Order: sequence, then C-alpha cells, then structure tokens
Amino acid sequence: MPVGLKAPVSLRPVPGVRVATAALGGRSRPRDDLTLFEIVDGASCAATFTRNAFCAAPVTVAREHLARAVPRYLLVNAGNANAGTGTRGIEDARRCCAIVAEATGAPAETVLPFSTGVIGEPLSTERFENAVPNVARALRPDGWLDAAGAIATTDIVPKGVSRSVALAGGTATITGIAKGSGMIRPDMATMLAFIATDAAVAADTLRSIAKDAVESSFNRITVDGDTSTNDACVIVATGALGNPPVREGSADLPALTAAIGEVALELAHAIVRDGEGATKFVTVAVEEGGSRAECLDVAWTVAHSPLVKTALYASDANWGRILAAVGRAGLADLDLSRIRIWLNGVCIVSAGGRDAAYTEAAGTEAVSREEIVIRIALGRGEAHDRVWTCDFSHQYVTINAEYRT
Amino acid sequence: MPVGLKAPVSLRPVPGVRVATAALGGRSRPRDDLTLFEIVDGASCAATFTRNAFCAAPVTVAREHLARAVPRYLLVNAGNANAGTGTRGIEDARRCCAIVAEATGAPAETVLPFSTGVIGEPLSTERFENAVPNVARALRPDGWLDAAGAIATTDIVPKGVSRSVALAGGTATITGIAKGSGMIRPDMATMLAFIATDAAVAADTLRSIAKDAVESSFNRITVDGDTSTNDACVIVATGALGNPPVREGSADLPALTAAIGEVALELAHAIVRDGEGATKFVTVAVEEGGSRAECLDVAWTVAHSPLVKTALYASDANWGRILAAVGRAGLADLDLSRIRIWLNGVCIVSAGGRDAAYTEAAGTEAVSREEIVIRIALGRGEAHDRVWTCDFSHQYVTINAEYRT
Repeated sequence: MPVGLKAPVSLRPVPGVRVATAALGGRSRPRDDLTLFEIVDGASCAATFTRNAFCAAPVTVAREHLARAVPRYLLVNAGNANAGTGTRGIEDARRCCAIVAEATGAPAETVLPFSTGVIGEPLSTERFENAVPNVARALRPDGWLDAAGAIATTDIVPKGVSRSVALAGGTATITGIAKGSGMIRPDMATMLAFIATDAAVAADTLRSIAKDAVESSFNRITVDGDTSTNDACVIVATGALGNPPVREGSADLPALTAAIGEVALELAHAIVRDGEGATKFVTVAVEEGGSRAECLDVAWTVAHSPLVKTALYASDANWGRILAAVGRAGLADLDLSRIRIWLNGVCIVSAGGRDAAYTEAAGTEAVSREEIVIRIALGRGEAHDRVWTCDFSHQYVTINAEYRT
Repeated sequence: MPVGLKAPVSLRPVPGVRVATAALGGRSRPRDDLTLFEIVDGASCAATFTRNAFCAAPVTVAREHLARAVPRYLLVNAGNANAGTGTRGIEDARRCCAIVAEATGAPAETVLPFSTGVIGEPLSTERFENAVPNVARALRPDGWLDAAGAIATTDIVPKGVSRSVALAGGTATITGIAKGSGMIRPDMATMLAFIATDAAVAADTLRSIAKDAVESSFNRITVDGDTSTNDACVIVATGALGNPPVREGSADLPALTAAIGEVALELAHAIVRDGEGATKFVTVAVEEGGSRAECLDVAWTVAHSPLVKTALYASDANWGRILAAVGRAGLADLDLSRIRIWLNGVCIVSAGGRDAAYTEAAGTEAVSREEIVIRIALGRGEAHDRVWTCDFSHQYVTINAEYRT
C-alpha cells in the first residue's frame, strides 16, 4: 500500500488549461484511460523525455512536434505504451495527433502524444477515432483530478499537487499530476508528469526552471532501477495570469522556481510512495563526498541494492548490507574508517564497523518506521546529494510477475 | 529450489591436499561450519579477492599473508563474515591464523583466513580455540565433500566438481568447491571457491590460468547485483603428481587451462542455479557488439533488471522489458532497427519491434523452460560476451527479508 500517500481531494484549475478524460474502451473493467489537455495559445512549454535509447513512438513524435511548434494539445493514453512497435508505432502516434487535429482544428504538429502501459502491443487507433471527439467536446478547467486517475496504470493512488505563489503580477496557480510506480529510474527525464501554471514565463526561462525542477525531483527517484521507454515531463506556463513574463533576472524568478520545484518534488515523492509493492519511503542522503557525482554513485547503489531493499521491507537494521553497497559503488580510495551511517538519526556505523553506542533495539526501532532516512557521511569532502526509493516486497514480485496476466 | 543442480555424490581427493570440517558450536541447529585445508609444502597458489572497497577483515589478512608466504593452510568459517568489524575484526582474523599455527606448527603467515555469513557481528575466537585442534587432527585426503557442505550459508545444495586431465607427466585431478547464493555479483573476484590440482604448475602460470578462469566464470554471474565483502577464489597446484611443472609454452598448458576453466565455470553456474529463490537458470548472450565492454554493459543491464527477472519467474515472455533494459544500458547511438532478440531460439524482436513471425504461444513455451537463453544481437560489430543469472522470485524476498531472524 502507498506509504503516507493519499489521493488528492481536489486540484485547482490553471487558467489557460482545460482537461478532459474518456474511456478508449476494450478493457475488462471499464475506466477512463484517455486524457486530453488543451493549452491556451501563446503559452510557453518545456518538455523532458526519457533517455532510454529505445524511446517509445509517441516520444519520438512528441520531440518532432515540439521542435516545430508550441504545443496546444497533450494527448495521453494509459494501458498501452506504443513502445517497441516499430514504424507502425510511429504511424499510429502520428495518426492519434491527426485525430486530435481533426477534432479541434489545430495543426497536428501542435499535438503531443504520450502513452504509458504495456510495451510491444500495437495501438488501436480506431478507439482514438471514437473517443477523441468526445473528449475534445468535454474539455473543462477543472478536469485535473479526473486526469490524475486516467493517466495511471499500476498506480494505486492518483498523484496530483496544487500550489499558489505570489508574483508581482498576481497570485499564480501551479497544478501538476504524475503517474508511475514501476519501471521507475528516470534518467534525465521522468515517467509521465504534467505541470501547468497560469504565470507568464519566457520560454527559455521555463526550460531552465523545468531542467532544475526535474533534475532535483524525478531524476532523484528509483523504484526498481528500470528506466522506462516512455518517460516524459511537460511543464506549461499559460500566461493567463497576465503578469509580466518571468525571465532571467525577474524578482519573481526565485519564488516561481521554488514553487514549481516543490510541485515536481511532491509528485516525484508520490511516485515512490506508491512504488510497486512499497511499504517504506526511503531517503538515501549522502554527504561529505568529494563531488556530487560520487555522492550520487553511492546513493544510487544503496537505493538499488535488492539486499538493502529487502532488509528494509523486513524492518531489519542490516547495516552490513548498506556498508557493502557503499563499498561496491566504485569510489576510488574509499576510506572505511571515515564512513558514518545513520538510520533515522541512529548512528549505526562509524570507524569501519558497528558504532560503539549502537544497539540492535535502537536500529530496529528506527528501521521499523514507514519513513526511513539512510544518511551516509563519506568523510571525503563537502559535496552532498540525495535520492528517494522504496523497499522491495513480496508484493513487488507479485505485481510484476502477473503484470500481463 | 536449485535449477538443474544436484549435490555432488563424491569428490576426488587431490594428492597434496588434506581437508577436514568441524562445528564451531553455538548454532541452534548443529552443523559443521569450520573447514581447514592443508596444502603440501612446495605447492603454488593463486588467489583472487573481492573488489568491494569494504573488504572483510579476513580478506585483508589473507592478502597480507599471501604477500609474505606460500599458503599451507586455508581456514574457512561459515555463518559470520567478520566484515564491518573494524580493528577488532582484523585482530580476530589474525588470532584465528595464530590458532591454526599453534595447532599445526606452521608459521601464522602461511595460514589464509576466509569467512562468510552475516556482516557486522564480532567473531567468537574462543570457539576457534576449541575447534581448530580437532579439525587439524582430522585432516584427510577425502574431506572435500564435507567441506562443500561446511562452507555453505544460504546455499540449498553443496557445490563441488572433480575433473581429470591427461598431462605429459600423468593424469592430473582437479577438484573444486564453492559456496554462494546471495550477494552475488562478483567483481573481478568471486564468492568463496577453492580449487586444487595435483599437477605441478609454475606460480606465475597458475596466476595466469586463475585469472582467465575467474574472469570467464565467477566474473560472469549475478544473482542480485550485490558484490560481497568477502569474495575469494583460491586455486592451488600441489605438484604431487610429479609432472614437469606446467609453464608458459608447455604442451600441457592448453589442456590444463581448459580443465581448470571448466571446473570454475561449473562451480559458477552451480552458484547461479542455487541462487536465492532461483527457479530458472538464465544465460544472457550478447553478440554483434562494437566491443566486449558494450556487450557486457547490455548483458549486465538485462541480467540485473528486476522487471526482466520477475517476468522470467512468471514465465511471461515480456520481451518489451528486455528491450527496455537494452535501451537503458548506456550505449551511444544504439540503432533500434538492427536489434534482434531471441528467447531459447525463438526470435521475439527484430526491426525495432515484435518479430513478424513471433507468436505469444511460442514465446511462452520458450520462457516456461527452466533453462533460458536470452540472445541479443546488437548489429554493431563482431564482439560478443555472456553472463549468467537467475530469475527473481517471491522466495528471494522471503530469504532476504528473514535472513537474520
């Protein structure tokens, strides 16, 4: 069950964005699985995509379209990733955009397609022919909560966040939704996340805000180390607020950057909290590194270790597995005698072994909580970084052994 | 249960080596967990150790002793790794060697200590004081089978192999034993493996033979991607056969190299077949790579993917997960349209998507077998390499969640 995560009760509309959902049909249990976002003309948009070399067809098409036009429509289907589908997949993704263009009158290149779900099955574009005109007619400002549900696949809880931030030109709204709970180890990109604000933001400034937000949120989480073929994060600034566009040097830039970053981080954490089979939410914080890169090497190695993750699942303060993972992270000249490790503030390792004051009772108490911080001090420098992950449970195996059945 | 693996019925003695086992005591279920090997004077010996930066105390001491003397005794305890035990761990490992020295009259630096088991618990050297004199008195040529059992921890099946090879000076025997089924992703080293031959081999030649044997066997397997703190492989050539020592240029070198390599590979496969929770034995063979390094990058990424491993467990031919893993292996300019993937000879992927002739029935049949070969052709060059792994089951989680309880 999700760790400390509840479904959002409401999500605030973002002036300049309308959203609707519909069912493509053909599921044994009917549910909405098609989402259409409409973005007002004149908005700016920043998008980040998976670095998996085998990106899905919709990612390829979305990149092409982004290079040619500012997006007006985002079309998202859940259940079929349209990945590993060859040239037919590309044609199908283009056809989906054309269907939106026909229903809305907008050029096809202003439509970005997104797909998530099973890899390797062809899309049924006939279902899009039927559903898209309906979803286009249903577009409305307050469709975000439905969209948070409609983009989900193995997610147990829909994920969405709203924030306000006071800018010179008025109070801006930021609303974002995301999906993802397996095949999660975003690499310079994300699973699906859509964030919008009504603030006006210069296009290059929005790209810079998006880059920072993604780097410190979605690019710092892992469930299973598997980078999806379909990851994408889109951040839209509609400008409907009418504020003077935020750009480099604007007094509003720090507050807006922080607020968008918070939305991205809360969504990223929600993905981990709803990670497949998760029973714990785990922060791996590495400090005193010689560089951020080596802090991340250590943090990812610990966060991906099946032995560490199964011990956390069992509430077993098996600090030897954490130490062993740090030791295989590939850092040259690592000095064991300088390493210190804490579990929720309880020092478990110092001077190359179990801390002298450590007791198994204190360690077990710390690791029994749902929220666990593994803090690792390397004693090599000033750099630090952190990643978030979940534990590894029987339920993870069940979910992924039965995914296609 | 182990995949296609049975316990050895007998292991042939190696002239020049005597072995015995004993119980250190203190276990809830009594079993032999202490092993002593005696190696005849004048043997040559090659040893490889873990590259985990936090190597265990016995590894540190074994390296020191190896640098000073040719080993005469190998002392192995199972159940306590003596890792993460700080300076006390080093003192304890030295004390264990001293105890052997006192019991045998050999210098302490001719004793190599090996430990495997839980990380972070101090050793009870008193138990060694009691047990070592007994085990030293019990040394005998035919103790190998008992030793295969006594070095085991979570292993379900003891692992041992005997081979003969005809050399110019007579027929040499090679016998080896190994242990390991979790925290297995040897990095230029191995879990515990002990291999001996009665052939005479020049020391530098034996080191070269050992390097090749380890590189293509123990360094090509993974169960869970976690490199142990205690991995070690020792290969001993006693010379008791009386053959002219095998050295560079000897006519016997190819046959001996091949035979030792076969023993190492069979032991490495046995570790995977008995991998924690394993229900399948999986070969990941990558070919048509631009270099061996990139073939290995792809092979390890596939072999470590929890999504691939859970799908194999479920006998689900979820080739999209294999394709996604290949895509995140970090190869620059990977051309999806050239990739082909086979499951036990059934082509599942070609030209960027599901192979035109592929049927789900054929894929399911292939992946339902206990022995699975995932063959991946990259279409980039002539290089190839392969690794071995197992699937990821509920039982893996159970074993590792309950390891210390």
